[in-house]
Amino acid sequence: MTVLEAAVPTPLPSPLRAALADRFGDRFSTAAAVRDHHGKDDSHHAVQPPDAVVFARSTDDVAFAVAECARHRVPVIPFGAGTSIEGHVQAVHGGVSIDLAGMNRVLAVRPGDMDATVEAGVTRQQLERELKGTGLFFAVDPGADATLGGMAATAASGTTTVRYGTMRDNVISLVAVLPDGSVARTGGRARKSAAGYDLTSLFVGSEGTLGVVTELAVRLHPVPEAVAAAVCAFQDLAEAVESVVQAVQAGVPVARSELLDATAMRAVNRYSGLAYVESPTVFFEFHGTEAEVTAHGEVVQDVCRSLGGSAFRYARRQEERRRLWKARHDAYPALLALRPGGRGLTTDVCVPVSRLAQCIAESIEEMNAAKVPWGIVGHAGDGNFHVAFVLDMDSPEEVAEAEGFNERMIARALAMDGTCTGEHGIGIGKRRYLEAEHGAAGVAAMRAVKQALDPLGIMNPGKVLP
Amino acid sequence: MTVLEAAVPTPLPSPLRAALADRFGDRFSTAAAVRDHHGKDDSHHAVQPPDAVVFARSTDDVAFAVAECARHRVPVIPFGAGTSIEGHVQAVHGGVSIDLAGMNRVLAVRPGDMDATVEAGVTRQQLERELKGTGLFFAVDPGADATLGGMAATAASGTTTVRYGTMRDNVISLVAVLPDGSVARTGGRARKSAAGYDLTSLFVGSEGTLGVVTELAVRLHPVPEAVAAAVCAFQDLAEAVESVVQAVQAGVPVARSELLDATAMRAVNRYSGLAYVESPTVFFEFHGTEAEVTAHGEVVQDVCRSLGGSAFRYARRQEERRRLWKARHDAYPALLALRPGGRGLTTDVCVPVSRLAQCIAESIEEMNAAKVPWGIVGHAGDGNFHVAFVLDMDSPEEVAEAEGFNERMIARALAMDGTCTGEHGIGIGKRRYLEAEHGAAGVAAMRAVKQALDPLGIMNPGKVLP
Repeated sequence: MTVLEAAVPTPLPSPLRAALADRFGDRFSTAAAVRDHHGKDDSHHAVQPPDAVVFARSTDDVAFAVAECARHRVPVIPFGAGTSIEGHVQAVHGGVSIDLAGMNRVLAVRPGDMDATVEAGVTRQQLERELKGTGLFFAVDPGADATLGGMAATAASGTTTVRYGTMRDNVISLVAVLPDGSVARTGGRARKSAAGYDLTSLFVGSEGTLGVVTELAVRLHPVPEAVAAAVCAFQDLAEAVESVVQAVQAGVPVARSELLDATAMRAVNRYSGLAYVESPTVFFEFHGTEAEVTAHGEVVQDVCRSLGGSAFRYARRQEERRRLWKARHDAYPALLALRPGGRGLTTDVCVPVSRLAQCIAESIEEMNAAKVPWGIVGHAGDGNFHVAFVLDMDSPEEVAEAEGFNERMIARALAMDGTCTGEHGIGIGKRRYLEAEHGAAGVAAMRAVKQALDPLGIMNPGKVLP
Repeated sequence: MTVLEAAVPTPLPSPLRAALADRFGDRFSTAAAVRDHHGKDDSHHAVQPPDAVVFARSTDDVAFAVAECARHRVPVIPFGAGTSIEGHVQAVHGGVSIDLAGMNRVLAVRPGDMDATVEAGVTRQQLERELKGTGLFFAVDPGADATLGGMAATAASGTTTVRYGTMRDNVISLVAVLPDGSVARTGGRARKSAAGYDLTSLFVGSEGTLGVVTELAVRLHPVPEAVAAAVCAFQDLAEAVESVVQAVQAGVPVARSELLDATAMRAVNRYSGLAYVESPTVFFEFHGTEAEVTAHGEVVQDVCRSLGGSAFRYARRQEERRRLWKARHDAYPALLALRPGGRGLTTDVCVPVSRLAQCIAESIEEMNAAKVPWGIVGHAGDGNFHVAFVLDMDSPEEVAEAEGFNERMIARALAMDGTCTGEHGIGIGKRRYLEAEHGAAGVAAMRAVKQALDPLGIMNPGKVLP
């Protein structure tokens, strides 16, 4: 461990321990169960517990904890809901995990500005509940009930990104505790600003390595008057992808466009007792007025037909839509159930949409030789797809096989002008790909920024930068 | 001048001069007329010529010039079309202006990905011409025929931002020459990425202070099947603003929503011999299918009526739309014509839309006592408005009066959670407001980033940071 990696004495230096225990009382813990819980996320990466956990209730709490850790050069790891999937919260060099789940107040909802200000520990579903009746909704949906602070830190996105963007597009500004314990507000709530460097975007996706996000102003969108869903099965995957590309090019503002491969469809049929056609399938959702979603459905049906799609189904009422989309919602647990006791290793490349079909096809050709089960779920409109490998984590051979496929898939995506991670982030899992994607000069610039803002190297060390 | 500000010997050190003259030949100039042209933009700020100008044709040219300037610690000022309006290109510490207008190739247009890759010197209108027949358009329109590199550097936006976003939303990735002459590509062309710090967003809006943008991948959008325009006059400005807020909340994806005050309407009538109602007026534009734009027009007409709007007019055909929108297009020259020989000093605050009416009203109340003529043009859907003061630049009193109004308007906007600049940038004109907006910690973080990436302080010194 180099100095930059903030070698940590374990256990914590006793003055730090005393300072934290004094301020946080029973919100300071070194219990093994608490530490273990904070040393893992939803990924296949091994548990690496921090030396202690503090449960923050305010930005002041966080500033205090960070300043104390800075004084003693002890790592700080922000923790939200623990739903990230590249080992973002693992305490690879020990240190203090700051749990933000208790910072869960929705501070303001402003229908007139279509925005809300929330503490970092507010979860996506909590915000959804609190927005009921306002006619507005928060549009980033990564699947998990993550905290909004965690979603900002990891630049999360998901099924609705094709229409509403990622966290980068939906965070207006934020409050962050910097590595020296000072507190920065990265902007106001104006819909746009050209005032200086874009600190908001710098913090979104920085995975806790530049500071701790404690508060966010986020965009809201009007709840559409009407929502419609459609599903269509295709002979092969290239046509399924093409249906989404052509729909978008035809000007249909597709709200969701999810791709499942034949394996995923088979897995869902088995898991949920359903009877979908077991071939590549696209799930669409449309938002608009009644007239608009009807028109969108018609355009997309034409597109699907012209590409040889079959079993096209369209639904308007919520219950029908839910039934139609059930396969998509169940896809991940269904894939895991292909192998009882298996654990998912999930890839996350994203390429320009014109290359998506080819990227998937070349990956499949190779993966057909895999010994472990796998299936594909993709956010087709974004050019982003996930292969879930279902592994026996006790088998190094299986892990190595899956990692080999992932590595070659990433090389393939980068050669197509894509990225090694569309939405899961770098964490500890993808640091070795950063230079291949950004080049030496790009990584040097990132490292310079990291060194400038966190000269002691205490903020979530061992993440993002190789 | 401190070391950070890169004190420059004038004339250029002779080895630098020789190196540039040798590489660039007749694309290297120290002629007074050339230097003067590169020492000013479209603002009221005084000319400050560089010591020399090089005309770049490639990223390699730029890298060479920057590396040579770094060796001799001489400032570098990137120059596009010179249409910025906060003194971005003034060579306040002398140095070498790098003119990018010759880097004007559209390198690729990819309908399948709805993106294009362009050199930094391609102008907005040039790209528009080259996109004819593709069914796609580039959506950021700041009015001026700026270069795309300049628009990225200044985080430009404009009339269509309410629907299509700013340059921050429309630049996918870029190539930048860093202050040491190395070349960084900030990403690929995937629609989203969570791979490391968002260098793209860091460079967009950095105004040439972190490096020189030489190439960009930008998003394109489908040309809408139908475009419609509407205009409505209101008794007072608050109702005009409210009409836009309510239209957006009703789910109408307004493509443009421009506000002119009574003075601006009067100025246009006089300038162009028109007969608009001389009261606060909103100009709308809708993009969609025929059915959609008809429906949008109806919703907006209802909204306008309920707010006491009058003289509502709606147009579908291009010629009619152009006539309807003429006032908006002529607004700036018409305001300048209020005073022959006058020069514009234009404010640029942006606030949450719920505060826009109040911010404008309070500003007007104060400005009613102004000795110089002024009028208002606003991008109402963004909460952004401009007051154009028409000044005799030889009168220090007039300049001081306008700057006083601007200063108090900025304080008002910041108190409303807004920004000192929605789209014009900081340049030399607004450095003193940066700390009021971002706080000491925010400016310290920006300064740390600047110092990390440009330790010699050669990149466009005297801009952005106070």
